[in-house]
Amino acid sequence: MTKVAILGASGYSALELIKILLRHPHAQISVLGTRREDNPDIAEVHPVLKDRLHLECTSLDPKEIASRAECVFLALPHKASMALVPELMEQGCRVIDLSADYRLTDSAVYEQWYNTPHVDPVHLSQAVYGLPEIDDGSIATAQLIANPGCYPTSAILALAPFVQSDCIESTDIIIDSKSGVSGAGRSLKLTTHFPECNESVAAYAIGMHRHTPEIEQLLQRVGKQAVEVIFTPHLIPMDRGILTTIYANPVSPLQGKDAFEILESYYQDKPFVRVMETLPSTKFSVGTNYCDISVRMVRGRLVIISCLDNLIKGAAGAAVQNFNLMYGHSETLALI
Amino acid sequence: MTKVAILGASGYSALELIKILLRHPHAQISVLGTRREDNPDIAEVHPVLKDRLHLECTSLDPKEIASRAECVFLALPHKASMALVPELMEQGCRVIDLSADYRLTDSAVYEQWYNTPHVDPVHLSQAVYGLPEIDDGSIATAQLIANPGCYPTSAILALAPFVQSDCIESTDIIIDSKSGVSGAGRSLKLTTHFPECNESVAAYAIGMHRHTPEIEQLLQRVGKQAVEVIFTPHLIPMDRGILTTIYANPVSPLQGKDAFEILESYYQDKPFVRVMETLPSTKFSVGTNYCDISVRMVRGRLVIISCLDNLIKGAAGAAVQNFNLMYGHSETLALI
Amino acid sequence: MTKVAILGASGYSALELIKILLRHPHAQISVLGTRREDNPDIAEVHPVLKDRLHLECTSLDPKEIASRAECVFLALPHKASMALVPELMEQGCRVIDLSADYRLTDSAVYEQWYNTPHVDPVHLSQAVYGLPEIDDGSIATAQLIANPGCYPTSAILALAPFVQSDCIESTDIIIDSKSGVSGAGRSLKLTTHFPECNESVAAYAIGMHRHTPEIEQLLQRVGKQAVEVIFTPHLIPMDRGILTTIYANPVSPLQGKDAFEILESYYQDKPFVRVMETLPSTKFSVGTNYCDISVRMVRGRLVIISCLDNLIKGAAGAAVQNFNLMYGHSETLALI
Amino acid sequence: MTKVAILGASGYSALELIKILLRHPHAQISVLGTRREDNPDIAEVHPVLKDRLHLECTSLDPKEIASRAECVFLALPHKASMALVPELMEQGCRVIDLSADYRLTDSAVYEQWYNTPHVDPVHLSQAVYGLPEIDDGSIATAQLIANPGCYPTSAILALAPFVQSDCIESTDIIIDSKSGVSGAGRSLKLTTHFPECNESVAAYAIGMHRHTPEIEQLLQRVGKQAVEVIFTPHLIPMDRGILTTIYANPVSPLQGKDAFEILESYYQDKPFVRVMETLPSTKFSVGTNYCDISVRMVRGRLVIISCLDNLIKGAAGAAVQNFNLMYGHSETLALI
Repeated sequence: MTKVAILGASGYSALELIKILLRHPHAQISVLGTRREDNPDIAEVHPVLKDRLHLECTSLDPKEIASRAECVFLALPHKASMALVPELMEQGCRVIDLSADYRLTDSAVYEQWYNTPHVDPVHLSQAVYGLPEIDDGSIATAQLIANPGCYPTSAILALAPFVQSDCIESTDIIIDSKSGVSGAGRSLKLTTHFPECNESVAAYAIGMHRHTPEIEQLLQRVGKQAVEVIFTPHLIPMDRGILTTIYANPVSPLQGKDAFEILESYYQDKPFVRVMETLPSTKFSVGTNYCDISVRMVRGRLVIISCLDNLIKGAAGAAVQNFNLMYGHSETLALI
Repeated sequence: MTKVAILGASGYSALELIKILLRHPHAQISVLGTRREDNPDIAEVHPVLKDRLHLECTSLDPKEIASRAECVFLALPHKASMALVPELMEQGCRVIDLSADYRLTDSAVYEQWYNTPHVDPVHLSQAVYGLPEIDDGSIATAQLIANPGCYPTSAILALAPFVQSDCIESTDIIIDSKSGVSGAGRSLKLTTHFPECNESVAAYAIGMHRHTPEIEQLLQRVGKQAVEVIFTPHLIPMDRGILTTIYANPVSPLQGKDAFEILESYYQDKPFVRVMETLPSTKFSVGTNYCDISVRMVRGRLVIISCLDNLIKGAAGAAVQNFNLMYGHSETLALI
Repeated sequence: MTKVAILGASGYSALELIKILLRHPHAQISVLGTRREDNPDIAEVHPVLKDRLHLECTSLDPKEIASRAECVFLALPHKASMALVPELMEQGCRVIDLSADYRLTDSAVYEQWYNTPHVDPVHLSQAVYGLPEIDDGSIATAQLIANPGCYPTSAILALAPFVQSDCIESTDIIIDSKSGVSGAGRSLKLTTHFPECNESVAAYAIGMHRHTPEIEQLLQRVGKQAVEVIFTPHLIPMDRGILTTIYANPVSPLQGKDAFEILESYYQDKPFVRVMETLPSTKFSVGTNYCDISVRMVRGRLVIISCLDNLIKGAAGAAVQNFNLMYGHSETLALI
Repeated sequence: MTKVAILGASGYSALELIKILLRHPHAQISVLGTRREDNPDIAEVHPVLKDRLHLECTSLDPKEIASRAECVFLALPHKASMALVPELMEQGCRVIDLSADYRLTDSAVYEQWYNTPHVDPVHLSQAVYGLPEIDDGSIATAQLIANPGCYPTSAILALAPFVQSDCIESTDIIIDSKSGVSGAGRSLKLTTHFPECNESVAAYAIGMHRHTPEIEQLLQRVGKQAVEVIFTPHLIPMDRGILTTIYANPVSPLQGKDAFEILESYYQDKPFVRVMETLPSTKFSVGTNYCDISVRMVRGRLVIISCLDNLIKGAAGAAVQNFNLMYGHSETLALI
């Protein structure tokens, strides 16, 4: 039984993490952290947890956390994570960070996109990007996991097979993503106020979304070549789910069935990627840790569709998948 | 052409008011007021108005407003209205107040439900409750209209025919209302954050909602008898619309067709009440100034259903209907 | 390991049943039945099941089903269930019927509300109503379970403590229910066509809904007294969830805290009823087997709110809860 | 006053047409046609019209229609339109056809995409494509208008300024569209059954949608050059609205402000296109006849966003705009 802490417990990713870990036979939630000073029971913060978990949310210091938990999940905003990680790791904790702080290996790129200096370059260089489907075995022994962003997971899983097999022009990729509103978090904003975003769809942050360099970095690593993408996220009036539509040019003519086979063979042993002929709806994967992928050829161009639950495969589910690999459990434990 | 001002222009009721008045042949919007100090163009505040109205939102004092507008619509929170009304009226403006400040004739009742003293008892005593369907002719000459609340409109219109004809037990009425989220306004709250209220329904303020005394006061006036209601509002994951389900006991046995006839004859000359045999959906009336009403008898008890658009018949549409009556126009002008 | 069959596998309740049973350590789905003649894989019928269950949907006769499964879940429309039950039971199967066919003990009442004669009075007299929270121990040994309706579960659980303790007028109860659209099933109808029911709320079947006699029968049994209810269901634009608002008169004055205590003590040992002071949203219980209940006193009248997931606690989850009791497992197995 | 007929009156486009024409001072709806043989009043077909229009829906022959109406709006499926148009025109009616039957000038292209021969090539050659913003004056005198599709309107309006000014590579255009569910019509399908499409997003008909050749034909005409597009439509869980995201390559480097100016100058005199710096949400234009367009440059590539209401600017509103031009009225009459 591994004792785990979850910091940033009041958010949506943390809630999913709690729900998954409550079903995990080898994990025990021993610490929940929030910034609230009144130490509320978690069921006050997330009423859905009433009678399922009784635990006070506290604001402990890293030493105390480390005394009560081996593994710490950070469901914090960026900047907050890198302020805590050094001490937590010094205390011997293994950390799974769901923020963006340790995803970009180059701190200059981090500073450019997040407008803040990276204060923990030492651990940044040790962090392992926790996308199990493209992992080289590093996750199992990692002390610090940078858990992937939701959009990057949907884009990277759709593109990795094609980039790795060198069959698309890697600097001319268009990624058009559609996300449910929970992706914008639990903080109040006019854009996520119900009467504003309900019954409406909008693009946002065109050309400026911070997941852009994350997608490119990972695909570059997979493809060992320069990658450039145009990434356009959209907000969809639904709670959960991301559908990503990708347009790419094959370097040489490709048939639909060959494209399908590239996907299928890449993911044949991966339990959480479902390659399907039917075009997936986000509803197929919402509430699960699956990423569903399909592909079509249109006028010689690849159109790839991938769907996942932004809070599960795009956040909490992936974090538990990483946890399973780090602690030697079956990759799918508590996730199916 | 009547020049009109709309104060509180950034809210949802004000937006509907603007859209209706833009189509009104005898009204011209000459002042828009908000608390914002940067004097934004209204199309910045409500992008849907781009190219339809160019007007700066200002924070004028009552004297300046009166110099530019004859009639002032107040789409302000309670308390803010009664702080402005005395001066506006002194300057000679006629006022249509969409807040609750002048709805309850007894200032003690106001103070009990709104937890604040009423600071303008003089005008309170002159205010006319602006529900045209139960009006005795006072609206036409009123200087100050208390525009009805959205829930009260749906409840009063459904009950008035039965209360007036003395055919139900007026102290044993149950009103179960279901409202779209725009009814909660444009201010940010966790309960109206999309991922919290989407795909969910909840009751709130049971036994404590401030529309309760308003409903009772009006039905007492209509029925000339004591009225007591249990009022339970619910939040429904949709932008607009209220459906109110009412349970009442006939004082003597009543047939369904008689109940229907009571409704039909009461509203035969009222252009905005549609009595129908089919059970109405809120969608029938959303976007219109209609209130749809149907009735059933179940085990000797009346079950009345009424539907309306909370922002139109429940707010801005009713306000223009009052405006039409006050300025001698056809009651339906700009509303059909 | 108990082999189970699910007939009517293409519907929404069956899908939930499959998802729950896939996590059940002592159940194995061995037969899936549909009326489709092309024997599709279940993942074609419910794409969300791709890679989670590979099983052909067949249309076997009862003898074959019985040769492959000990326990049969019937997720069929009414009439279809009672056409199959006699043979299935003759073959030795235990049956959990999610239809209405065995819920009403009096076949005359069944015929009156369902407009069709009951063709299996023999088993009707043996059927056990499968609501574990009010069960007297009969479920454990039952050969045939009549699994409760979704509305009845929400109403009965809210009212049973008060009816049993004789503290409300049992013939003057108003039940106003709000249900998500999945409650209307997977068959196509104009009323559940997205552009018709989205952004809208409507009442339906006022005074005529078939769950009315089921609610009354059970409360009569619990309270040992006549029970009469007015039941009004409403369709809400959301996938899942029921919120039921109940109005009842105490026979003698009751305080809010006493009402709360009646609920709390009744359910203190029931793992799936959460009595809460906060007014529940349906979102608290959607995706779970919980029923959340809260209570308020308004002007001397009880207002009770109960929420549950219509497909889980209102159908498939309750069915597995019954299964657990029938086969000697922990009541909460696979359900938490 | 022009007497008009609307055939196919039971659909969503027809309903919008009726609502707009009821406000039109120079049009009178004199005939409503449906295939229903019971001649229902239109308020039975569309309850929202109760008390707003009393007119029987009939199934008249073209001669009778022509005797009662000068101008006929066809809100019919493809094939049904071209079966009626010859006779209607022979009888002297002017026709505004909202189906696809007269949009593609080349009947071979029609046959290829619609899998049916074109049976009225004579009138096909006379039909005028009714997109007023790119019209050369032909609409005013047309006897037969092919009213544009909803997706094509959003795509063509976004692209026409750039194609006409020869500043993008016209054979490498990606069009990624997101549409509300009313776009799929009022016929029942599993994909538009509420519990299937609510809370979900999906792509469909990738590379095969019939609006593809329509978009290309019009842009070719505007740009006098070959045009090839990849068009991917998506279904979004909302009633109305289309957002189209377009990716195109400038033939020579372009600044964001230049791109904006190309749009602004192209549409400076067009009352229904709003070029805006803010990224539009579909909610800005839903319920109106506006098309909102914005543009960004990302890594040297144009990203254009356009939004409109699929039933108004994408269907009924455009039809009335055409009607206004055909009958010499102000283009915006009844539309603002």
